[in-house]
Amino acid sequence: MTMTLMEHETPFDDDSLHEECGIYGVFGAQGAASIVALGLHALQHRGQEAAGIVAYDSDAQQFNSVRRMGYVRDNFTNQSVMDLLPGGHAVGHNRYSTAGNKGQTAIRDVQPLYAEFAKGGFAIAHNGNITNAEALRAELIERGSIFQSSSDSECIVHLMARSIQRDIPERMKDALRRVEGAFSVIAITRSKMIGVRDALGVRPLVLGKLGDAWILSSETCALDIVGAEFVREIDPGEMVIIHKGGKLESQRPFGQPKPRFCIFEYVYFSRPDSVIGGRGVYETRRLIGQELAREAPVEADIVCPVPDSGTPAAIGYSQESGIPFAMGIIRNQYVGRTFIEPTEQIRNMGVRLKLNVNRAVVEGKRIVLVDDSVVRGTTSRKIKEMILDAGAKEVHFRIASPPTAWPCFYGVDTPQREKLLAAQMTEAEMAEHLGVDSIRFITLDGLYRACGEDTGRDADAPQYCDACFSGEYPVAPSDMLQSGRLELKKSA
Amino acid sequence: MTMTLMEHETPFDDDSLHEECGIYGVFGAQGAASIVALGLHALQHRGQEAAGIVAYDSDAQQFNSVRRMGYVRDNFTNQSVMDLLPGGHAVGHNRYSTAGNKGQTAIRDVQPLYAEFAKGGFAIAHNGNITNAEALRAELIERGSIFQSSSDSECIVHLMARSIQRDIPERMKDALRRVEGAFSVIAITRSKMIGVRDALGVRPLVLGKLGDAWILSSETCALDIVGAEFVREIDPGEMVIIHKGGKLESQRPFGQPKPRFCIFEYVYFSRPDSVIGGRGVYETRRLIGQELAREAPVEADIVCPVPDSGTPAAIGYSQESGIPFAMGIIRNQYVGRTFIEPTEQIRNMGVRLKLNVNRAVVEGKRIVLVDDSVVRGTTSRKIKEMILDAGAKEVHFRIASPPTAWPCFYGVDTPQREKLLAAQMTEAEMAEHLGVDSIRFITLDGLYRACGEDTGRDADAPQYCDACFSGEYPVAPSDMLQSGRLELKKSA
Amino acid sequence: MTMTLMEHETPFDDDSLHEECGIYGVFGAQGAASIVALGLHALQHRGQEAAGIVAYDSDAQQFNSVRRMGYVRDNFTNQSVMDLLPGGHAVGHNRYSTAGNKGQTAIRDVQPLYAEFAKGGFAIAHNGNITNAEALRAELIERGSIFQSSSDSECIVHLMARSIQRDIPERMKDALRRVEGAFSVIAITRSKMIGVRDALGVRPLVLGKLGDAWILSSETCALDIVGAEFVREIDPGEMVIIHKGGKLESQRPFGQPKPRFCIFEYVYFSRPDSVIGGRGVYETRRLIGQELAREAPVEADIVCPVPDSGTPAAIGYSQESGIPFAMGIIRNQYVGRTFIEPTEQIRNMGVRLKLNVNRAVVEGKRIVLVDDSVVRGTTSRKIKEMILDAGAKEVHFRIASPPTAWPCFYGVDTPQREKLLAAQMTEAEMAEHLGVDSIRFITLDGLYRACGEDTGRDADAPQYCDACFSGEYPVAPSDMLQSGRLELKKSA
Amino acid sequence: MTMTLMEHETPFDDDSLHEECGIYGVFGAQGAASIVALGLHALQHRGQEAAGIVAYDSDAQQFNSVRRMGYVRDNFTNQSVMDLLPGGHAVGHNRYSTAGNKGQTAIRDVQPLYAEFAKGGFAIAHNGNITNAEALRAELIERGSIFQSSSDSECIVHLMARSIQRDIPERMKDALRRVEGAFSVIAITRSKMIGVRDALGVRPLVLGKLGDAWILSSETCALDIVGAEFVREIDPGEMVIIHKGGKLESQRPFGQPKPRFCIFEYVYFSRPDSVIGGRGVYETRRLIGQELAREAPVEADIVCPVPDSGTPAAIGYSQESGIPFAMGIIRNQYVGRTFIEPTEQIRNMGVRLKLNVNRAVVEGKRIVLVDDSVVRGTTSRKIKEMILDAGAKEVHFRIASPPTAWPCFYGVDTPQREKLLAAQMTEAEMAEHLGVDSIRFITLDGLYRACGEDTGRDADAPQYCDACFSGEYPVAPSDMLQSGRLELKKSA
Repeated sequence: MTMTLMEHETPFDDDSLHEECGIYGVFGAQGAASIVALGLHALQHRGQEAAGIVAYDSDAQQFNSVRRMGYVRDNFTNQSVMDLLPGGHAVGHNRYSTAGNKGQTAIRDVQPLYAEFAKGGFAIAHNGNITNAEALRAELIERGSIFQSSSDSECIVHLMARSIQRDIPERMKDALRRVEGAFSVIAITRSKMIGVRDALGVRPLVLGKLGDAWILSSETCALDIVGAEFVREIDPGEMVIIHKGGKLESQRPFGQPKPRFCIFEYVYFSRPDSVIGGRGVYETRRLIGQELAREAPVEADIVCPVPDSGTPAAIGYSQESGIPFAMGIIRNQYVGRTFIEPTEQIRNMGVRLKLNVNRAVVEGKRIVLVDDSVVRGTTSRKIKEMILDAGAKEVHFRIASPPTAWPCFYGVDTPQREKLLAAQMTEAEMAEHLGVDSIRFITLDGLYRACGEDTGRDADAPQYCDACFSGEYPVAPSDMLQSGRLELKKSA
Repeated sequence: MTMTLMEHETPFDDDSLHEECGIYGVFGAQGAASIVALGLHALQHRGQEAAGIVAYDSDAQQFNSVRRMGYVRDNFTNQSVMDLLPGGHAVGHNRYSTAGNKGQTAIRDVQPLYAEFAKGGFAIAHNGNITNAEALRAELIERGSIFQSSSDSECIVHLMARSIQRDIPERMKDALRRVEGAFSVIAITRSKMIGVRDALGVRPLVLGKLGDAWILSSETCALDIVGAEFVREIDPGEMVIIHKGGKLESQRPFGQPKPRFCIFEYVYFSRPDSVIGGRGVYETRRLIGQELAREAPVEADIVCPVPDSGTPAAIGYSQESGIPFAMGIIRNQYVGRTFIEPTEQIRNMGVRLKLNVNRAVVEGKRIVLVDDSVVRGTTSRKIKEMILDAGAKEVHFRIASPPTAWPCFYGVDTPQREKLLAAQMTEAEMAEHLGVDSIRFITLDGLYRACGEDTGRDADAPQYCDACFSGEYPVAPSDMLQSGRLELKKSA
Repeated sequence: MTMTLMEHETPFDDDSLHEECGIYGVFGAQGAASIVALGLHALQHRGQEAAGIVAYDSDAQQFNSVRRMGYVRDNFTNQSVMDLLPGGHAVGHNRYSTAGNKGQTAIRDVQPLYAEFAKGGFAIAHNGNITNAEALRAELIERGSIFQSSSDSECIVHLMARSIQRDIPERMKDALRRVEGAFSVIAITRSKMIGVRDALGVRPLVLGKLGDAWILSSETCALDIVGAEFVREIDPGEMVIIHKGGKLESQRPFGQPKPRFCIFEYVYFSRPDSVIGGRGVYETRRLIGQELAREAPVEADIVCPVPDSGTPAAIGYSQESGIPFAMGIIRNQYVGRTFIEPTEQIRNMGVRLKLNVNRAVVEGKRIVLVDDSVVRGTTSRKIKEMILDAGAKEVHFRIASPPTAWPCFYGVDTPQREKLLAAQMTEAEMAEHLGVDSIRFITLDGLYRACGEDTGRDADAPQYCDACFSGEYPVAPSDMLQSGRLELKKSA
Repeated sequence: MTMTLMEHETPFDDDSLHEECGIYGVFGAQGAASIVALGLHALQHRGQEAAGIVAYDSDAQQFNSVRRMGYVRDNFTNQSVMDLLPGGHAVGHNRYSTAGNKGQTAIRDVQPLYAEFAKGGFAIAHNGNITNAEALRAELIERGSIFQSSSDSECIVHLMARSIQRDIPERMKDALRRVEGAFSVIAITRSKMIGVRDALGVRPLVLGKLGDAWILSSETCALDIVGAEFVREIDPGEMVIIHKGGKLESQRPFGQPKPRFCIFEYVYFSRPDSVIGGRGVYETRRLIGQELAREAPVEADIVCPVPDSGTPAAIGYSQESGIPFAMGIIRNQYVGRTFIEPTEQIRNMGVRLKLNVNRAVVEGKRIVLVDDSVVRGTTSRKIKEMILDAGAKEVHFRIASPPTAWPCFYGVDTPQREKLLAAQMTEAEMAEHLGVDSIRFITLDGLYRACGEDTGRDADAPQYCDACFSGEYPVAPSDMLQSGRLELKKSA
């Protein structure tokens, strides 16, 4: 059963492919909401549809909330808005746009969610996806809970409301033990900030310090923007509770951690200037490019990235292969909404708004084109057409991730399996389909090596969630299975 | 305990004194939401802060909701908004602005409220006030319900969600039996429209018919605007259920009705072109004016209304007294927000924006000024000043209601008792305080007579709720009493 | 030749019939722009499409301008807007909506107009219409002037720019001597305020005083709102120049005045609480009603106004005839934009949004319906239908002006002659066309008598412009005649 | 003398340093305005404050104009706006933000300007700056012209209006012969498109073809976005007139061309994917980087660009020096408005919103930082601080242009000479002032070599305007000199 009320706000229109969410919390700093706004701005790449901030004003003993459609920079930058969010604790959330309901998101689906319990209110921001949300929702409604949103995250709030524990961290443990899937969570109460990662640690969550204040953030780049110090990652399965006065308490309420960090964070989601697992994402991507050059060499005149996400791997590919690096495609930094199509003559208009082939650079050249991934293949096809129109002699795609052949159920908006190009074709078929001279993906083993696992991927004990490449899901997506919407790959 | 989350939207600013809510439902007509929009426009005088409509689209099997701050005419008049509300059943609500949180109402406090139960969704619009809402809310939160709004009406929804009945009308009866206070309610489900009045029938609710479609409305003037036929009033304590196909079922789930209709509806709230108890409100007000002329005659040159609400009583006063009727005060029909005060020279600016003394009419005259009621007395004082500035010789206030000496707890926003002028002063003291030659109110007996009770008010069995005049509350306001915010008049 | 650039702003939608402009100037008061805003609010009935204010800030030696579509109350009431308009001198303008370009007015057509001459800037607000604007415009363009707007008033500005006089008042005289038609003008320069009425004095202009500051205004009601004292009317053909320090100089630059004040100002345009020619407009209208009752008596049960403009005449009719006055039609004070028509069942929807028949009052009655004028007759027809639907037994229209049979060329937006009901039909034909029991208009003689001319209208020397009733135009509308768009009534 | 009326619209806030304007015209294509919108989007880097489009609708024989503050993507992308601009000819303009009146630009200063002459209207977009605008303006006002804007471009329009020529191209020649300074102009009339470059050809203008339609554009990248073919550059001193039917006529109305193309277009203004003088801008910048590596080598670990403008030169520097290229600074692609500063702890916030140091890349490294230019030096200083905070061992700035020591008067918004760092300090002083290990600029000779002049800059006959580096102005800035605001460098 799904929520059938549609609340109508101004639609927001963005055609980005796959994003997820960004979360950010500050505890114990004057103007906490303004710091959260900066953090969310640095995490904007993780979700661009909407953003929200809840701050706790201890003077008025009141939580205040502002949630808006659109970019952080367009909503949380003027004084009159920020004046609505006084106080020293705040939590924020960037929402991504899921394929299903583009332009239909209601404000009430925008996080942080807030609820008032018998012993006080709390606000929660969740990054990830609950794979048994439908079953939980049905059970909760049956028992008299009223859902306000279509967000799966609301299940956590209702489970907490019904917990017989009195204390909010205890209620949260009760609730999260019932939840399957991926969850990195930041919550604030009147006197605490809480950060939690699920036992697999699929989604990232890091801890920082700004003077005496604590910060929780999806990525380290959002600590840099406010000049905060990076302390450490929250561990898979860890709950940290920051108390009034600044004491940090660490608990492990979900048993033994079984780390399976999302490997796509390295490939695409995270910003290159973030640090994961002790190494810069930029450096990992550069190493992916080098590995790719070794695995799939080709004779060519220049190596060009599909900007901006392909740039570090293209630099690596160039360095390993000795083929000069060049900006053969230029990104328009004023990318925006969809323009009106004036005539049929103007082909590939959507792509042209963002990318322009640097004609003088590519003309007459054999091009290695480095991209981070191929999902549906439609953009790749258009880029190829534009490059050939500009007079390139050969086009060789080199992809900095293995073929994306399986959907993600842990917080990423991938299309159904049938629409994933790599689920339908071999590399050779793809080259023909796309009309390029060659296309090659890095192997899963090669990707693991570049990520620092010298042995490549050891099938017995993978360190990462690589389900989108391998089809091996560390947590069964139970709603999908029960409703028959998905049939899993049979493991041997 | 109060809700402590504040959600921030653009504030709306209106300084009207006392309003309440308007509700309207349509069942079984194409473009139901557009009919509701017209109805709400006709009921705009009952609430001007915000309005909402929920419609059920049976094709898509989906409820759609639009709730906006501001006037109906500014929000529900363009095609793109109304296109969001397809379907043959719809319910709407006009919200009034309560003193406490002017300009702070969150969209989520705007009705109709919507909830999804195990067996389907429903939308509800409530006019009135629940006097035990705080106690109910605390109990529900304790048991794990999560409130989304600060609206007392949400208690009804949570009580319904927790009812062990399966059927929505049965759940509603369960819930309303727990509720104290005044409630006129319209609700729609996927297949029904439900209308209910509490056993006292404090707030109005009427039934109409437009072709095959049924309409429920706070007042008959909102039937006229769509050309619908007035069928009858819903009885105190009655629940009507309109079924698919148009069958109307009537039930009496709340025991014996004890009719105590709000007498202030005659005096002020209802529009003069509505019909209550078989007689036009305009005519009742004219009769009040005649009664007042008999009870409190005075020698004067002209009778002027304080427009627009004092007009019918002024006509009656003029007819009974023989003193000519004249428009000595002109209402600016473009009344709006607060202007910037340019200099201190401009006194009474707030009043001047709405009302201008017709200098040529009042100059050198003895004026009888007829107003509907006196609450704080501030506006009366300013009007008097303006009239004297314009050269009037004498000013005699004649008030078409008894002294308002007690607050209302049944859905009207009256100030605390200490701020009610009539709670502090006699008529003579008021005349001195206001600086007028005389002020006289109609007696409660006189008011009853004008409303059709030939015997006046019979203390044993009043037909009306006249608590604001008498201090005799038909239902004890239990939240107020328990929290010590109110001490009731001792009855002899 | 017409302006062929269309600049596109948000359209504004209002279906009011005939309005004209309001102008207001303040010289020598702190917060002059805020006083102008109040004045324009009081003059809102004269023009509702747009409003503008230009203020001169002597500290910064700069004129500032804000011009906006929509009501004064919606645009000039917040501090941030008014902060843009500092200074002690200011002039403002309310623009009416002409039939031709409804919803297409560009901001640049909104007055006050501003221009920079060799010796300094000035801002001008004009009420009226220039009947040789097209010829002037063609000549000015031929000589190299560039028009910014489609406003006829801009001709005055260009004529002034090309004047060989140095001084702004002298330039203005030069310009206005070339102009035919009606003009009441208020202008401010860095050191002066200027007020002018054309030699006929068609449009009103009054002088007031607020402390040491001078005020010029279209009507006296806009002096009342700021508490200013009414000094006198500006005479036909007079130019007043108010100098720094407050000295007022009066000149007569246009030869002998030939007063022909617009008689429709009495009937409809002016607010009832304004004073014209030493008498309140309300009183004049009441006298029109009395005259009408003598000229066109009828047996009936009640006299009802079409609110609000018919009210004073209805009171007069009732007083003269002895038939009781009653509010048989109620005006919705939240009148606004056009609603979506839900079904064909709802007839007369446009009228119903503004007016509701007070069913209980009119049922079974013979009604005298008093309205100010009949233009196209469409509204009259709809009102009649609604009244008969509500059960009235007879409907007798009594109109407080003579038949409107000729278009106005002096600043009022009347339809073409073919669309004027009175240009096509006799009273008897109209009664049949409208489906009423009778319709009668006051005679032109009767109207003159009510306006204070005991002898009625003396054809040799009328005191008023009554061209809309008589077809006798005091100034030939030369653009219309030259372009063949109009053929005048042959005088005997 | 300056314009002293300020018209107030919503301010727009952008802190970009130096931009100029982009212009674009389409003649003979369905949906011309939509093509212009795409072209302006591709030229957005040349001006971000506002944009306007005027289109000629030959069916209605009417010009339509839409001018808006803000980005093209935010204003010209929805159907309802573009529906206002029908027709086959259109011209558009991107406006840059000048230092003097940030956030105060009035809509009326936004181009294209439109004027109606005796023989028909025309619209004009101008890129450049008129150095004798003040003198022309004073003269025109003296003779009765009324200026609507504070734009210097309006002088051209008034000069044309007063020309005794009848034909618009002839009027334009008359006008442009009176104008000093830099002008690239696109204009449309009812039947023609006109493109002009001044005799020096300071600002670019190129000709393209899309099917049968002609396009004029500031840069070739805006031909690419619509798939148009690049035909040729308009020559310095050339006027092209495109007639109905598509015939292109070329004239040379301004005597002998003396080409002095702006060399800063190579360094910064133009997009890297545009082609100037037969070579890609990207390639020229890469060659500048190589030249810089030869002129100013340094021992270091990595070469990092200040993104995005420093990237091609950094690639060239890396290739020539053999030091690896790395993205040591990451640009936030969601750059926007100013955020609220939460605390003083957060230093360099303005820069951090746009740029983040890639800590893992720069830590412990000796960095060559390649930037396009240094103007005030404030941003350079902040970047240096951030890089050192992140742990870099050494910072060596290498600048891809000579020291910017003189203001531009030909359409670029540079600060006054006193605020230009290079006007005050030697390279050594700058290194100390900025706190870096070294800073080196390319020589002017080196820049000429990289731009293709093998001999470097030959002082007798420079091919470029390099006044910002050399102080040698090809046209004397007469307004500045006459008003004493500028004293020129004495040439030997």
